[in-house]
Order: sequence, then C-alpha cells, then structure tokens
Amino acid sequence: GGAGGLLALFLIFLFAQIGAEIAQRLKLPAVVGEIAAGIAIGPSLLGWVTPSSLLDILAEVGAVLLLFAVGLETRLGDLQKIGKTAGMVAGAGIVLPFLLGYAWGVFSGFSPAHAAFIAAAFTATSAGITARVLQELGALGRIEARIILGAAVLDDILAMLILGVVTALQASGNRGVDWAHLGFVLLQAVGFVVVVALVGTRIIKKRSSVLDAPINPLSPLTMSLAGCLGLAALSARIGLAAIIGAFLAGMVVAESDQRHALEKQMQPLLAFLTPFFFVVTGMNVSLSALSGWQTLLSLAVITVLATAGKWIGCGLAARSLGARSAAIIGVGMVPRGEVGIIVASLGRSAGIFNDTIYALIVAMSLLTSVIAPPILTRLLKDAPPPEGSVAESAGVDDEDVSLLYSVEETGHS
Amino acid sequence: GGAGGLLALFLIFLFAQIGAEIAQRLKLPAVVGEIAAGIAIGPSLLGWVTPSSLLDILAEVGAVLLLFAVGLETRLGDLQKIGKTAGMVAGAGIVLPFLLGYAWGVFSGFSPAHAAFIAAAFTATSAGITARVLQELGALGRIEARIILGAAVLDDILAMLILGVVTALQASGNRGVDWAHLGFVLLQAVGFVVVVALVGTRIIKKRSSVLDAPINPLSPLTMSLAGCLGLAALSARIGLAAIIGAFLAGMVVAESDQRHALEKQMQPLLAFLTPFFFVVTGMNVSLSALSGWQTLLSLAVITVLATAGKWIGCGLAARSLGARSAAIIGVGMVPRGEVGIIVASLGRSAGIFNDTIYALIVAMSLLTSVIAPPILTRLLKDAPPPEGSVAESAGVDDEDVSLLYSVEETGHS
Repeated sequence: GGAGGLLALFLIFLFAQIGAEIAQRLKLPAVVGEIAAGIAIGPSLLGWVTPSSLLDILAEVGAVLLLFAVGLETRLGDLQKIGKTAGMVAGAGIVLPFLLGYAWGVFSGFSPAHAAFIAAAFTATSAGITARVLQELGALGRIEARIILGAAVLDDILAMLILGVVTALQASGNRGVDWAHLGFVLLQAVGFVVVVALVGTRIIKKRSSVLDAPINPLSPLTMSLAGCLGLAALSARIGLAAIIGAFLAGMVVAESDQRHALEKQMQPLLAFLTPFFFVVTGMNVSLSALSGWQTLLSLAVITVLATAGKWIGCGLAARSLGARSAAIIGVGMVPRGEVGIIVASLGRSAGIFNDTIYALIVAMSLLTSVIAPPILTRLLKDAPPPEGSVAESAGVDDEDVSLLYSVEETGHS
Repeated sequence: GGAGGLLALFLIFLFAQIGAEIAQRLKLPAVVGEIAAGIAIGPSLLGWVTPSSLLDILAEVGAVLLLFAVGLETRLGDLQKIGKTAGMVAGAGIVLPFLLGYAWGVFSGFSPAHAAFIAAAFTATSAGITARVLQELGALGRIEARIILGAAVLDDILAMLILGVVTALQASGNRGVDWAHLGFVLLQAVGFVVVVALVGTRIIKKRSSVLDAPINPLSPLTMSLAGCLGLAALSARIGLAAIIGAFLAGMVVAESDQRHALEKQMQPLLAFLTPFFFVVTGMNVSLSALSGWQTLLSLAVITVLATAGKWIGCGLAARSLGARSAAIIGVGMVPRGEVGIIVASLGRSAGIFNDTIYALIVAMSLLTSVIAPPILTRLLKDAPPPEGSVAESAGVDDEDVSLLYSVEETGHS
C-alpha cells in the first residue's frame, strides 16, 4: 500500500544521504556510501526495506535519468574524435574478461556452455557507476571520461550480443545456433544506435526549436524527458539495456541550444532519483549466500580476474594516451554494477546459475563497483589536466578541452 | 517487468504533455488536459496503460512533491493571519456538503450509516488540483489562495476524522462507537499538525544551517526531500493523507534561507513527477460503470450537490472578503480529486459501496475537479489584485502582499 511504499522510499532516500555523507568524509565516492547503505538496510543485514518490483522501477528511472544526464554532457562530435580509441578499449574490454571468465568456469567444472554464460557476466561494464564517480569529480569533460563512456556504450551492445549468442547456445542444445536470428538481433541493435546517434543529433542541431512548445516554459525539459523515456523503452524493447536509449537521448539533446539550461534542471532530478538506483543495487546483495571459505575464495578469484581483465585489456588498448590515462581508462571500465547483476539474473531465471554462482556474480559485480571508484578518484585527483599533446593524440583541440573544463567547474557550484 | 514499466511511464508522460498543450490552447488549465489524457489512454477508452500499484506510488510521489512545493510557498505567519477565515471556510465546507450528501444518500434509499459514508466523500477537498491551477496562474501569493490551501489542510484533517467516525460506526454496528479510540485518532492528527507546524518552523527559522551537509552542495534540497518523504510517511502512518505531511514539510522549510533556491530546484521535479499523479487519476475513471440514464442522472445530481455544497458553504464563510474573493474561495474548494477517490476506495474495500456508487463517487470527484479549474481561471483572470482594504480585512498588510506578488511573477519565468 501507499504508506509502506512511502516509508520504504523515505528510508532509502534518508540512508542514501547518510551513506553518501559518511563515504565522502572517508574520501570515498558518494556512490560507494549509497551502495553500502543499501546493503545495510536491505535483507542481508537490518531488513528494514525489501526489494520489490516497485523499487526496481524507481531504481531504473534513476539509472535512466543518470545516463540521460551523462549523454547530455557528451557531444557526438567529441565521441567521433575518440571513436577509434573507444572502439579498441571496448573490444579489448570484452575479449580478455571473456577469456578469463570462460577459463575460470571450465576450470571450476562447468560445462563449456555454462562457462560461456559466466564469461558473459565478466564482459559487462556499468557506465552508471563510473559516470557518477566522474561526475562527482567534475571529470566528465576529460578525454578519459569520454573514452570510458563511449567504450561502455559499445560494450553494452557487444555484451548484449554475447548474451544473445550464449542464450541461443543453451536453448538450442545440440540443434545448432539460429544464426539468422542472431544476425537480426545484432543488426537491430547497431541500427538503433547509429540511427538515433546520427539522425537524431542532426535533426536537433538544425532545429533546436522542436523542443519548444508554444506555452509551457519548461517544455524543453519535458520534451527531452519524454524523448528520454521513449528511447529507453524502445531500447529495452529491442533487447538492449534501457540506459543505452537514455544515453542516446541525452546525446541528441546535447546538440540543442538549451543544453546548459537542461544540464542545470537535471541536477535536482538526479539528486532525488539516482540514490534509489544505488541503494536498490546494494539491497540485492545476499550476504548469507556467500558464507564458507571456499565460496569466499571463489569470490576473491573471480573478482581479481574480472578486475584484471578490464584493467589490463582496456589499459593496453588505451596505452597511446600515456600511462596514467591508460590506467584511468582501465580502472574506469572495471565496475560491472547493474549490468553484471542483470546478466546474473538472466542466468538464474534460465536455470543456468544456482544460488551460489548467482550470489558470486552479483557480489563480484558489486565488489568491482566498490573497488574501482576509490582508485579512480585517486588517479584522477593526482592527474594533471591533459596536456595538449595528449588531447591532440586523440584528436581533441585545446579550445574544446578548455570549454569542457569550464563546464566541469560549474558542475561543482 | 522493466520494459513494460518504462513504456507505461513514457506513454503517461508523453500524453500528459499533449493533453496539457491542448488544454492550454483551449484556455483550460493544463491539469484538465492531463486528467483527460489519463481517461483517454486508460482502460475506459484506449486501454494502452492500465492502473497498477507501481503507477499508484509514482502518482503518490508526484502528489507529495506537489504539496511540498505548495507548502514551500506558504509561510506560517501568513497562514496564522488568515487562520480565522480559513477555519470558517473549512468548517462551512464540511458541514453543508455533509448534510447535502447525507440527505441524498437517505433519499436514494441507503441506510443512515451508508449515507454517512457517502456524505464523507462529499466533504473531501483536493488541495492538489486547486494548488496546481493557482500555481499555473501565478496566484499562490493571493490571499484567496492561502485561505483555500489553509482550509484544505484543515478540511483534510476534519474529513479524515469524519471518515474515522463513519468507519467506526459501520464496524461497531449496534455495539456503539469506541469514543476513546476516536478521541485518540483526533488528538494524534491535531497534535501532528500543530507540533510540526509550530515546532518545526521555529527550529528551521532559528537554525537554517541544519539543512547544510558539509560536503554535498545540493544538500539543502536532499535534506528537505528526506524530510518531505519522512513526514509524508508519518502522516500516512497515523491515518492522515500523506500529502498533509508533505505540505507541512514544505511549510517548515519555507522558513529557511534557502527557500527561493529550493522553489527553483523543485520546478524540474514537479515537471517530471506531477503529470503521473494527474494522468493516473484520469486512468481510474471507469466510463462503463456509468452507463444508463438513471446512473447519469444520479451523477448529475450528486455533482451539483457536491459543487453547490462547497461553493455556497465556503463562499458564505468567506463573504467578508468581498463577493469576488468569496466566489474564488468557494470554487477553489470544489475539487474532490484524489481525496474523494481515496474515500470511494475505502468505501469499496469496506464492502459499503457497490460498483455503481463507487464509480459515481469517483466520477463526481473528477467532474468537480474538471468543472472548477476553468471557472477558477476565469474568476482569477478578471480579478484585480486585492485592494488594501481587502487585504487588511484579513489582517495582511500591504508590504506582505507586494512581496508575495513579486514571488508570483518569478513563478512565471
């Protein structure tokens, strides 16, 4: 009922604020505090709030708005400039973790088909968690941030494709894979991203006024939000993560004149709704499924493999940017967050994962999400603003960078 | 699942914008267009979206934030000045509609106890709908607006009490009423409102800084929202409407230095979330339960009685402010909105209302909500700013009024 619902929302929101405050005093990103708050008030510890479909959709709305805001700070022109590096980062970030995950699965006694499903969870990247950390540090304008977010979008598409292949492998058993269907899924996903990114941005660039309704003064915001929800729903409909559509909607709107006004108007929406995403993510951790030294050892091993796979793979792919930038990009790709959890849920509902392997994948997704932010914070705080040569090596000119740094500063006010 | 959820949110949000745009072109308040959009896409007509507990809680969050924002524009000092008039308006707005509703119930062949339950639905006032219309017109600073909202808060408390009495009457049958319990419910409700309104405002007035967390720059907003959700949940817990707690939270925060910044930050939140409240209200209308001329005749009669009861009762109570102000207040108290619908739902789940009387009460609640806004808009557009004598008659000095008018203007930008 309503009262229980509102009480749950109150507890989640309150403890998100408390967790964020504690984390920030400990020099950790606020998002770590929010996930920890979810573990604390969730069924694993205090049990004050239990996961529900209602909280799931609120959490999803929070993630959708967060990725919309991230898209809003992403210009297609900038993304195209870093496209080649981002593509290499995404590719290396898929291949190495998949191989490591597959090897661990086979070594642990799983069938090749089951090991492939575990490996698929290793390939996931959570753009949401890294984006939030980058936003907190005012680093969304940095070249590394744009490569990470660009690669995360490509990763999501590739991960969904791998998941499609793996699911088809399970379902078909010995009958062979339906390659035509797989090709169709791939084509649809790639087509969606390309059409929205290229055609959408071009329309908005030419006619920013489509966002202005004649009477309502807030119409650029409401029109953009309608577009965001629509593309998120469409994205989910064709089998991609909803947040991909939201990110693309933000990227389209970023071409409009109202871009800066919209960025400012999004702040209160993010402050209200994104805590639900991170607290609910924490609430889903089942600490009891992780008891026993053997399970904990397995958790340690897969967390190290999953971390090393992304860090080394993506770092190597980005080595042309210099050691520190490569490290930032490698670490930035580590968090699995909600994407790893989604793969785990799919594996469980398909009867492939038992309770333990499900809890392992979820815990690995969360551990990678908790390990990476403090390292990323330290790397970014020590990092000098990218030099001309670094920026140029990725094709970004100085004016662009300084413009983006000024945006960064206003983000703190 | 997620996709269905997001798709429903998209359709609701999109058609809310379309409905609002059409309504405003027809010189109707946007809220009428949003309710009409809900009827159109809901089960009665197109059936694209069906009511669900998920949508109910989103709608409730929208209503809670709306009443929080209304509270934010309400100063306790101003409310105390108009307290006597608001009290008279609230009292008359309860007594006359209750008598008319009771008379209709008995005349239509219901038992006295059932007739009393129908009468309870007649006493409801929806602060939400009137507040939105007043906000759209930039009229929240007017003396009439503050009397309406003050009276609506009192009305809600009185209506909840009547509902308590009526429910106890049903439950006890011939055993007599548990007066001790009723007294406790009343005491709790009055105590909650008085303690929050008086103690809360005093604390914030003296120490505005309690809203500032040391690190988070958005903390006055997030702290206020946490307080809003907490008081809304507490309010629902003790048997009052959640929106009463939200309104009080807004009123408390209105005493802080950050008041104007918060008002501005609330705008995007309202733009995103209040459409869900109004569209879901429209979706709950069942047009098919209202077929047949006899039912339609009953609907016409109860709508006229419910409208006349508030208009005449509240108008007479406010006659000291002059004919036009009295008319504005009378009409402003007419919408039953969600409060009438809540009473109808309670009556149905208690087995007192059958499908037809339930649909009649819901439709009456909506018709009063659709009839009143255009009349209110016309009355307010033609109304001159209140003269000194009018303001003085309610104990508001000129400086106060001019200050409030300046707030009004910024509300449009």
